[in-house]
Amino acid sequence: MTESRPLVLIADPSPRTVPMIFDAVQWARLNAVARVRVHDEQHRLPAAELEAALAEAAAIIGQIDLPAGRLEQCRNLRTIFNVEGNFLPNVDYDYCFRHGIRVLNISPVYALPVAELALGMAISSARNLAAADRAFRDGSERWGGDSNLGCFLLYGARVGIIGLGDIGTALRRLLEPFHCPVQVYDPWLPPSLVREQGCEPVELGQLLRTSQVIFVVAGVTAGNIGFLGRAELELVAPGSVVLLLSRAAIVDFDAFRELAAAGRFRAGTDVFPEEPIAADDPIRRIDGMILSGHRAGGPASVYQDIGQMVNDDLELVLRGLPPRVCKRAEPETVKQMRGKPVAC
Amino acid sequence: MTESRPLVLIADPSPRTVPMIFDAVQWARLNAVARVRVHDEQHRLPAAELEAALAEAAAIIGQIDLPAGRLEQCRNLRTIFNVEGNFLPNVDYDYCFRHGIRVLNISPVYALPVAELALGMAISSARNLAAADRAFRDGSERWGGDSNLGCFLLYGARVGIIGLGDIGTALRRLLEPFHCPVQVYDPWLPPSLVREQGCEPVELGQLLRTSQVIFVVAGVTAGNIGFLGRAELELVAPGSVVLLLSRAAIVDFDAFRELAAAGRFRAGTDVFPEEPIAADDPIRRIDGMILSGHRAGGPASVYQDIGQMVNDDLELVLRGLPPRVCKRAEPETVKQMRGKPVAC
Amino acid sequence: MTESRPLVLIADPSPRTVPMIFDAVQWARLNAVARVRVHDEQHRLPAAELEAALAEAAAIIGQIDLPAGRLEQCRNLRTIFNVEGNFLPNVDYDYCFRHGIRVLNISPVYALPVAELALGMAISSARNLAAADRAFRDGSERWGGDSNLGCFLLYGARVGIIGLGDIGTALRRLLEPFHCPVQVYDPWLPPSLVREQGCEPVELGQLLRTSQVIFVVAGVTAGNIGFLGRAELELVAPGSVVLLLSRAAIVDFDAFRELAAAGRFRAGTDVFPEEPIAADDPIRRIDGMILSGHRAGGPASVYQDIGQMVNDDLELVLRGLPPRVCKRAEPETVKQMRGKPVAC
Amino acid sequence: MTESRPLVLIADPSPRTVPMIFDAVQWARLNAVARVRVHDEQHRLPAAELEAALAEAAAIIGQIDLPAGRLEQCRNLRTIFNVEGNFLPNVDYDYCFRHGIRVLNISPVYALPVAELALGMAISSARNLAAADRAFRDGSERWGGDSNLGCFLLYGARVGIIGLGDIGTALRRLLEPFHCPVQVYDPWLPPSLVREQGCEPVELGQLLRTSQVIFVVAGVTAGNIGFLGRAELELVAPGSVVLLLSRAAIVDFDAFRELAAAGRFRAGTDVFPEEPIAADDPIRRIDGMILSGHRAGGPASVYQDIGQMVNDDLELVLRGLPPRVCKRAEPETVKQMRGKPVAC
Repeated sequence: MTESRPLVLIADPSPRTVPMIFDAVQWARLNAVARVRVHDEQHRLPAAELEAALAEAAAIIGQIDLPAGRLEQCRNLRTIFNVEGNFLPNVDYDYCFRHGIRVLNISPVYALPVAELALGMAISSARNLAAADRAFRDGSERWGGDSNLGCFLLYGARVGIIGLGDIGTALRRLLEPFHCPVQVYDPWLPPSLVREQGCEPVELGQLLRTSQVIFVVAGVTAGNIGFLGRAELELVAPGSVVLLLSRAAIVDFDAFRELAAAGRFRAGTDVFPEEPIAADDPIRRIDGMILSGHRAGGPASVYQDIGQMVNDDLELVLRGLPPRVCKRAEPETVKQMRGKPVAC
Repeated sequence: MTESRPLVLIADPSPRTVPMIFDAVQWARLNAVARVRVHDEQHRLPAAELEAALAEAAAIIGQIDLPAGRLEQCRNLRTIFNVEGNFLPNVDYDYCFRHGIRVLNISPVYALPVAELALGMAISSARNLAAADRAFRDGSERWGGDSNLGCFLLYGARVGIIGLGDIGTALRRLLEPFHCPVQVYDPWLPPSLVREQGCEPVELGQLLRTSQVIFVVAGVTAGNIGFLGRAELELVAPGSVVLLLSRAAIVDFDAFRELAAAGRFRAGTDVFPEEPIAADDPIRRIDGMILSGHRAGGPASVYQDIGQMVNDDLELVLRGLPPRVCKRAEPETVKQMRGKPVAC
Repeated sequence: MTESRPLVLIADPSPRTVPMIFDAVQWARLNAVARVRVHDEQHRLPAAELEAALAEAAAIIGQIDLPAGRLEQCRNLRTIFNVEGNFLPNVDYDYCFRHGIRVLNISPVYALPVAELALGMAISSARNLAAADRAFRDGSERWGGDSNLGCFLLYGARVGIIGLGDIGTALRRLLEPFHCPVQVYDPWLPPSLVREQGCEPVELGQLLRTSQVIFVVAGVTAGNIGFLGRAELELVAPGSVVLLLSRAAIVDFDAFRELAAAGRFRAGTDVFPEEPIAADDPIRRIDGMILSGHRAGGPASVYQDIGQMVNDDLELVLRGLPPRVCKRAEPETVKQMRGKPVAC
Repeated sequence: MTESRPLVLIADPSPRTVPMIFDAVQWARLNAVARVRVHDEQHRLPAAELEAALAEAAAIIGQIDLPAGRLEQCRNLRTIFNVEGNFLPNVDYDYCFRHGIRVLNISPVYALPVAELALGMAISSARNLAAADRAFRDGSERWGGDSNLGCFLLYGARVGIIGLGDIGTALRRLLEPFHCPVQVYDPWLPPSLVREQGCEPVELGQLLRTSQVIFVVAGVTAGNIGFLGRAELELVAPGSVVLLLSRAAIVDFDAFRELAAAGRFRAGTDVFPEEPIAADDPIRRIDGMILSGHRAGGPASVYQDIGQMVNDDLELVLRGLPPRVCKRAEPETVKQMRGKPVAC
């Protein structure tokens, strides 16, 4: 009877490892519905075995190269899971769309950790928390009313969210009890879905000019590199807060750094054009800036949720149902979404 | 017709000033329902005028001394507003209770600003945000996964709130979207009201032992000075976060500092036994500690809400209705609540 | 040691009985903190024993007559619980206020049951649910689109709440996911508290003219009898829904019935000027009317919560703390609030 | 320049008409992004013009037959909108999946109206609202406590939802403030998504045995006809409420009627095996039953939202983005979902 379990091939899951994403519970759950073969850095399958596994596999978990030629050999394949978090160019997506193979990634797992850090940065910036703490270190702290000059409450502040995808949506939920009027710029969404989240769809310029806290949480696509240029950043109202959480490539980073250094706005960033940044990068000395080294995706415990997400959708697909939990590659957009992982 | 407006005496509002708490809108609103006389640091009334005003006033706003002897002269008095935020010993409360004079303070205005800063500290501590930022300043920052060692998500973490008063309640609302199981220790509240806020009422020991983030937001009373002693603080689980937002007097501060310095838990505090703290206070050098100089009460804009609160309740009282917005002095507890302002 | 438990006297709790309001758990809880004596319809105490119990009691639960002369004998009395739900004229309230005796009632227990029935009536009226069901009984029902003529969704409808007390507040919470703009008329509340519940404070006329569903949930006071007169009811927009849940005395009931009979608005009521109503009352034949026989207060299971409320506050008061759960008699208003119970 | 607008063909939208689903605003919006041709009952295009329009159309709105042969002529087609609410067999879905043509329907528009009626039925059943109203009509009504025998509060009651699709999800949101523990049976959903909505995923048997209010809101598929058979319905706890809102075909309707008639449970239904039902159908005489003639989909105003949904997704698709608002035909399930409209 167990012979009837379909084969699942875990192939090149790096930078994840099997134990990183499947805890004991999820590993048992996976093995209950499938026979599992692993082809990773520690255990490379011989070429023939790999080919045989590909030919038989109902699902592939990992970032192994899957050009059309190889996909044609995959006679049972129904779904492919990217467990790193991006739709990388390792898969021939058109082939998959034509043949009803679901290509999925686990990027939604990062949405909440990133949103949480974004909120922490927002409160810290609006209330000057990190800088006030630094001042204690050299004895320059101020007390009481004085120490709150230039501060404002996040509660009730005008918020702008650039990109209402997974991260933006998670962030919007965390902001709920702050009763902020929230403006959203997201050209991929119809106004009705923005309003459904209690936000106001606006043009980018209005958002930049009128928001006290601006969250940049849009993904990078072929079409939006550098769309937050110097001209756009100069629209930001003095004393506002600009937080960059998703990808450095969508912003003119030099302009971002210079305007923050000049005190035009307070800022924070978790991403940089090159990581790590140079030891003498002047961004390190900007007082009104919170710096975070590409760590918003969260602690390793977050990875444990990847296994659950994969199992959730794998079980559905094996039962002949559509996946519901992971992000789907969509024919219209998959080739536009490229870039570095949100978290490594 | 306007002669029929009752008299309101603003007397010794210090450390507030009239323009600090009444903006133009609220000042006009106040003057629409009352004749207003001011006796403050800038404009002292002559003794006879002050006595006459006290004798006629339907309401007193401020912290002027009101012993029984003087209250007996206040023939029309219905309410007294403390606009600093504490029930100070300037009023003979028993006299007021016997004579149906409502004594009120505006401390609820600080609840949300303090709760917001507490949440910011919590995310910063759980995710190591302030310390990671400091590391960038001297080039010692870490990147990606490494940088998240010892971190955890606030989302879903086990939270303990010590004191579910105005601050604790405001904090609980901000925590709502984090889906944390929340334990509460508050001996002033029946279990049903704790549960109504979606929290679990527990004993102090259990809260300390099992919470990953502990918010100390209880007010200080005659009976609870130092109730978080060394023995209690040693119950805190290693790696947890302890945040002190209300009053330093309720905690054994030396033990708090020593355990944080030893890395037993991460911590943050906005209050200190003496403020400002000494230039060589070792707390300044603790890495896993966020320091804030009694600034949780928020920026000056918060004070503007005081005028609205006072007007809200003043209008009710003048119309023969009970106050609803400010905190009421209660016969059972008013003499137990003493101390320094939450914010100055 | 148990001798030190204070005495609690249950005296004339009718129309409640002890087992009706104290289940086994709450009865045990009560007896754990107090010695209990009962003076009710089944077990009358001899006069001398009653006097002795009154003299010693720290708390009285029930509606026994407590004029000043008797209260003067109550040397230990700290609190009185009305377990029927109104501040009846059985107590000399002024005496209690002067002497710091807390007089409480358990009316908040009815808020949720009434609010729930109100919501059910609102959906039924807006969607024509009860009438459509009646039509099936005589074969006159309509199907599909036709059957929805004159109907509207409660979701998103303009709602008016008259009286944002306990019932109104409970109702507003139940309406939260319906995303209705909610207007409130409540002269006892400052605008800020109305806004805090996400509602817009408005004048009565505007509410009546512009709301699609009007909930009348105000209590009756000395000052508001008949305040919803014929002229006010005629302001209601054609096709709207008017639901009367609290007290018949605040509305001109003849006008209410006539306008509903004429089809000017749809309506529902749980209360009537005389109960039960006459067999030939024409209200029985109005098609667009939902009728309910003073049953909004809910099933008997609701009474079980009374014991918990009493214990919650009794424990606080016995520990020297202010009550938090029951409704307090307030000097400003207690004499205005008179009337029949919301539920019997 | 306007010549570059793509062509949209509205073809056989019946039972909808163009003005029924596009109000002036949405019609203008549609015409701003597309040239529109209409082929409906009033205005049939000549065959040649229809063929030409099909050949050019970027989108088709309506239920016109689209077998593979015809689809092959549609050289520009990117999306097809069913505006009735079901994935009917008029489209060769496989062809569309292979060629990246998005087939969509507007069924989500009905979710909220159905959920709202379901909630109204639930309160009415739990609190006996419709039956109590009927009793007034013949003078048999009861008053006060008596009238609440057998009733229970929906607030806090154990709820079971069978099918957590669009309707179930909308219903779950409306139930939020009722603080009900909610069990869900939905074999199409992974447990994590059920838990994300604050519900407990359970087996059907447990749900039926332990829920006080059971909402049957599952769609009908090839595989679930009659899955609520007599044996399952007999598991329902005495005195519980069973509400049937989606499709009659998933329940053994005879058993449902008989058990309700026998008083085993209270019930309500908006759907029937044959509609309209016979004049002498005994279901008409069941006292503990609320009857509704396939009217849960709501008043005609609901149809106005269809135009907005279509425009939302049309604009996305025309801009090369995936649809986000309408329901997508999924290769795995489209052929399983067949049946009568939820609302006509």
